[in-house]
Amino acid sequence: MFAKMIVSPQSISFDQPLALQSGASIRDYSLAFETYGTLNAKRSNAVLICHALNASHHVAGSYQGQEDSVGWWDTMIGTGKPVDTDHFFVIGVNNLGSCFGSTGPMDQNPDTGQVYGADFPVVTVEDWVTAQARLLDALGIQTLAAVMGGSLGGMQALSWTLQYPQRVRHAVVIASAPNLTAENIAFNEVARRAIVTDPDFHGGHFYRHGVVPKRGLRIARMIGHITYLSDDVMNEKFGRLLRPRTDAPATSGGPGFRYSTQDVEFQIESYLRHQGEKFSEYFDANTYLLITRALDYFDPAQSHGGNLTRALAVATAKFLLVSFTTDWRFSPKRSRELVKALLDNRRDLSYAEIDAPHGHDAFLLEDPRYMGVVRSYFERIAAEGAP
Amino acid sequence: MFAKMIVSPQSISFDQPLALQSGASIRDYSLAFETYGTLNAKRSNAVLICHALNASHHVAGSYQGQEDSVGWWDTMIGTGKPVDTDHFFVIGVNNLGSCFGSTGPMDQNPDTGQVYGADFPVVTVEDWVTAQARLLDALGIQTLAAVMGGSLGGMQALSWTLQYPQRVRHAVVIASAPNLTAENIAFNEVARRAIVTDPDFHGGHFYRHGVVPKRGLRIARMIGHITYLSDDVMNEKFGRLLRPRTDAPATSGGPGFRYSTQDVEFQIESYLRHQGEKFSEYFDANTYLLITRALDYFDPAQSHGGNLTRALAVATAKFLLVSFTTDWRFSPKRSRELVKALLDNRRDLSYAEIDAPHGHDAFLLEDPRYMGVVRSYFERIAAEGAP
Repeated sequence: MFAKMIVSPQSISFDQPLALQSGASIRDYSLAFETYGTLNAKRSNAVLICHALNASHHVAGSYQGQEDSVGWWDTMIGTGKPVDTDHFFVIGVNNLGSCFGSTGPMDQNPDTGQVYGADFPVVTVEDWVTAQARLLDALGIQTLAAVMGGSLGGMQALSWTLQYPQRVRHAVVIASAPNLTAENIAFNEVARRAIVTDPDFHGGHFYRHGVVPKRGLRIARMIGHITYLSDDVMNEKFGRLLRPRTDAPATSGGPGFRYSTQDVEFQIESYLRHQGEKFSEYFDANTYLLITRALDYFDPAQSHGGNLTRALAVATAKFLLVSFTTDWRFSPKRSRELVKALLDNRRDLSYAEIDAPHGHDAFLLEDPRYMGVVRSYFERIAAEGAP
Repeated sequence: MFAKMIVSPQSISFDQPLALQSGASIRDYSLAFETYGTLNAKRSNAVLICHALNASHHVAGSYQGQEDSVGWWDTMIGTGKPVDTDHFFVIGVNNLGSCFGSTGPMDQNPDTGQVYGADFPVVTVEDWVTAQARLLDALGIQTLAAVMGGSLGGMQALSWTLQYPQRVRHAVVIASAPNLTAENIAFNEVARRAIVTDPDFHGGHFYRHGVVPKRGLRIARMIGHITYLSDDVMNEKFGRLLRPRTDAPATSGGPGFRYSTQDVEFQIESYLRHQGEKFSEYFDANTYLLITRALDYFDPAQSHGGNLTRALAVATAKFLLVSFTTDWRFSPKRSRELVKALLDNRRDLSYAEIDAPHGHDAFLLEDPRYMGVVRSYFERIAAEGAP
């Protein structure tokens, strides 16, 4: 339908130390990023895309000669797509602490000459936004037409409107929440414990032992996957289907079970094991810890006595919020908390609650109503131009 | 309020091999059980209690000289309690494969002289019920006034009405389901993988290595705990409360975080770690695998082409079903599937959906409406006497 967009990653280094929320700072770091479309003369058409747990700066397009290297939000961003790169200059940036290009735990700590590992400083959503703002400075962009993200990316978009209210005209916050619930934190904690207690973790310095805590990463990913999907879609896709037996035919009339506690019996088991295995091959364990912790910590209302309305009073951006009915990780209820706090502040906002079966994962999928809502919103942004 | 009931566990051995659903059989096994109240002359007042994952034959009362050894359903069973032992002869039985007294993976396999470990045969809900029926035979009880259980125990109660319809007058099925959903199986599978991939598991023969796969057991229990509680009750009990800092006072005005990926920051983390630790001290890893698999396999409709109505046609018992509004592990929807299938068969049933905040755990707690429903139902059973 659309011509394939060929893109290239870029990298930018920062000498100036970055002071982090924890009190620590990081120096000599670099950020990986990509851009799509063209910055206009007024530098007013920039859209920043913030990523969630398992993603990167590679948001759209493909790399030359690598057919399969399609960006994680390629359905959303490109020529003629909801965020149309014929109108907008879109920036994807990889967050600090990631394992996909920006400085992270696998890199060398300039203070010690050793790989950071578990010594990489704890980074927060606010720290990521500060680093992203420095990237915009370097690109000569003062004001964003929009900042946009789903899930943890939505938290960053929200935080932009609080940390740099004058630099954001629109914030698009999808399948997100003003903070994590106890249950959300609980799932993160189990995943972290699985990683940290894997004997191959070596206190986070596994690189020097030439091993990877794959057992822990597999478990972490399996837990994550369960929470990304809805009960409904799991039942529809897998239900109680058995994995076909290749070892021996099912006895006639029997249920076809292997009667084993360790072999795969059900398709859902096979699916989860596969997802865990894939993830453990490429994702860094220390990055997983850092990113889940950033999720746990995010809570802009905390410094306002838990009052979200007061916390959001500083935001002047216009908002589009989207949630999905079957998302039980960041349920519509959590988006409505944001809507209420913004309305209390008489902010300009649009809110869409999309009836989609896919759970939290829906924000990455190509639901036509969802795509339509985002498309309309960006057409409005394009129409209004710079203020 | 009530005099404390002092009880003693008993054990009974079976020489006759028990043929299992898997095709395997088990011989020279014993079952641990307890009884409360007195069997009447007509032997018509027996109530069998079936246990769920983390429980045993020790259902009610306490052991002599052990103040803390209160049975797991002591709120439900005893003199003047909903299942009143002044009227009923109540039997608690520990299932095969357990680690609490009945023959299980920690015992010696008579065929090899070695500890069973991972070689303990896979047991199903149906196998447990068959073994329970043999216990009743040995106790001289032909017909149960009622069989009762919550969660996995409810599956056993249901299976009694299908395997031995003539031996059950009433079935009380609480917070249960006609089978597991894909999501239920998924959570079980992650827990099992955590155990099986723990290097201390040694393929299930860890006993001979003098170790216990505690890392895996901890993770398994943490996952379980999240699914036993409701999101609401977790938020109410823990919310985003931080664990008090003992190492250093929070800096004034700061959020009081330690900024650590491995230390406990939130109360919910501390709670989960504690639950995991406790569990890993006493629960057998092979038993965990067996019991979660029995849950996965249970599906009485399977041999009827998935038609639950046809599957339940054989049941002649009267039913009390109870579910809890915030139970997302075995939601009210699943109990309603049972209600519908029983009504399709024109069975006598009562169904109560209790508005309780505690999630799946509610079936073990002392909610007054829940207790009232069970009490009334057992008063009715007592009033109608034997047929």
